[in-house]
Amino acid sequence: MEAEFLDWLHEQLGDTHDVLLGPGDDAAVLRMLATSAIVTTTDLLTEGVDFLLADVAPARIGRKALAVNLSDLAAMAATPVAALVALALLRMRAAELARALFTGMLPLARQYGVAIAGGDTNTWDGGLVISITAIGRVTGHGPLRRDRARPTDHILVTGQLGGSLLGKQFDFAPRVTEALALHGQYDLHAGMDISDGLALDLSRLAAASRCGAAVELDRVPIAAAARQLAELDPSAGTSLEHALGDCEDFELLLTAEPEVADRIVLDQPLPVPVTRIGSMVAEPGLWQRDTDGSLRPLAPRGFQHGD
Amino acid sequence: MEAEFLDWLHEQLGDTHDVLLGPGDDAAVLRMLATSAIVTTTDLLTEGVDFLLADVAPARIGRKALAVNLSDLAAMAATPVAALVALALLRMRAAELARALFTGMLPLARQYGVAIAGGDTNTWDGGLVISITAIGRVTGHGPLRRDRARPTDHILVTGQLGGSLLGKQFDFAPRVTEALALHGQYDLHAGMDISDGLALDLSRLAAASRCGAAVELDRVPIAAAARQLAELDPSAGTSLEHALGDCEDFELLLTAEPEVADRIVLDQPLPVPVTRIGSMVAEPGLWQRDTDGSLRPLAPRGFQHGD
Repeated sequence: MEAEFLDWLHEQLGDTHDVLLGPGDDAAVLRMLATSAIVTTTDLLTEGVDFLLADVAPARIGRKALAVNLSDLAAMAATPVAALVALALLRMRAAELARALFTGMLPLARQYGVAIAGGDTNTWDGGLVISITAIGRVTGHGPLRRDRARPTDHILVTGQLGGSLLGKQFDFAPRVTEALALHGQYDLHAGMDISDGLALDLSRLAAASRCGAAVELDRVPIAAAARQLAELDPSAGTSLEHALGDCEDFELLLTAEPEVADRIVLDQPLPVPVTRIGSMVAEPGLWQRDTDGSLRPLAPRGFQHGD
Repeated sequence: MEAEFLDWLHEQLGDTHDVLLGPGDDAAVLRMLATSAIVTTTDLLTEGVDFLLADVAPARIGRKALAVNLSDLAAMAATPVAALVALALLRMRAAELARALFTGMLPLARQYGVAIAGGDTNTWDGGLVISITAIGRVTGHGPLRRDRARPTDHILVTGQLGGSLLGKQFDFAPRVTEALALHGQYDLHAGMDISDGLALDLSRLAAASRCGAAVELDRVPIAAAARQLAELDPSAGTSLEHALGDCEDFELLLTAEPEVADRIVLDQPLPVPVTRIGSMVAEPGLWQRDTDGSLRPLAPRGFQHGD
């Protein structure tokens, strides 16, 4: 299968400026001008855990597999350059699946200027596995790290949170452009993408930065899908609990000093809203700030990958 | 499992000069000084196809998964910099398998100066999948491509070929140092690694270079393991057939103009032998050159991945 599929793929890919030598040789060669550092990340999705082939069209799975990697580049405020795509495909459906996966992936790659620079297509008797590695360029503003928040920073999020199960978990737009725009215009201290739920990811950002984070719960922007989920099944939690705990929002979680954060919220420089949801604090841990200003512990919720 | 395993892994990794920001953030940041291009490759190994857990210790599997990627970097004459390791692990044995895989991988990474810059550790109910992406630096001599052979070039191979089933398929040394040494000292035209058998890979190099290749069969260096296999099971082919067709030699296949090739063979600048096995020819295809100089078609053998 591989030769025929590769021919098809090469046609789809066309020439890309940053790929000096693309699929076909032992490795790809990427142009990396005007940078002294690259950013790279890998995410692997497996059938039965990250998706069910019975429920989700392969094109959406392929799109998501690339999108989660682009979200990680966005989380570093890096410019996407290239991706490598390794597949383990059920032998019986290999050609059909490979094309469908790429059919979902390629428009997203074009949209964000990502060259599919290489890959490895395998068949076996097991479930579908998609492993993508994305490579990006650090901008002149440096990488946006999660361990640089300061105890007086304000905390910002893009978009609305929760309920991604209803569709956003596959069809989300990785916040690449948004991260680059914010990191270019404002002095951000720390940032990451929200993949395992706001509360858990914020507790990670705080821990990495050796401080704490206090959320003002009434400020958390709740997605319509989170409200829908809460209505559909009240026993699974309130809409706020969905916004705090649901995985796969793929929004940006950012910190900046109060004046900068205020300016961002005032400017609203993105096509999606940017909301201040709280502030970093000196006391390690995750907190909720009550209306009287006092802090109470907030349980990190969300999904622990790999458990 | 992931947090505990990552703690263990971080301890093993230590600090590496080229990793500005390692595992723990959304993506890794790699130093890429003094280069305008990077080389990158990905290889995914699956249980049942590339290895049987019943037969092979996980440490050897982990080592091999990295080694095949380093062999691809060697094939481009690139200096290894970093690798990202994505795993899909059987839930029941996840922690044990992950450690064993890295226990095999880390000494090889240290040996070749490769930083494990990131990864993604997943559990599921399926078989073991290891997907590694390696990133390297192009040297001042540029990448060694497979599509630059000229019709008058001589063809060289490193080491001896065939019979890797008897052990070399797991325990081979990727020819990184060898490729860099040769590409630095001599004007090589084209190169690749021999992963799917000499005949098939040489036919690919010839096709990529839009010319043909003629092998002088009596010059092909036959590994002791190929002779052993031929003795063990004569019906599976002669030792020469093993040398031409067996997969996973991971030796280098190179071309250079005759004077340069002669000099390399005379100099023998590597710890492993370099042998001239034939010459490129204008007529496309794979050929064997008889002792009287005439050409006869030679069937590309070897393993087609993904069939």
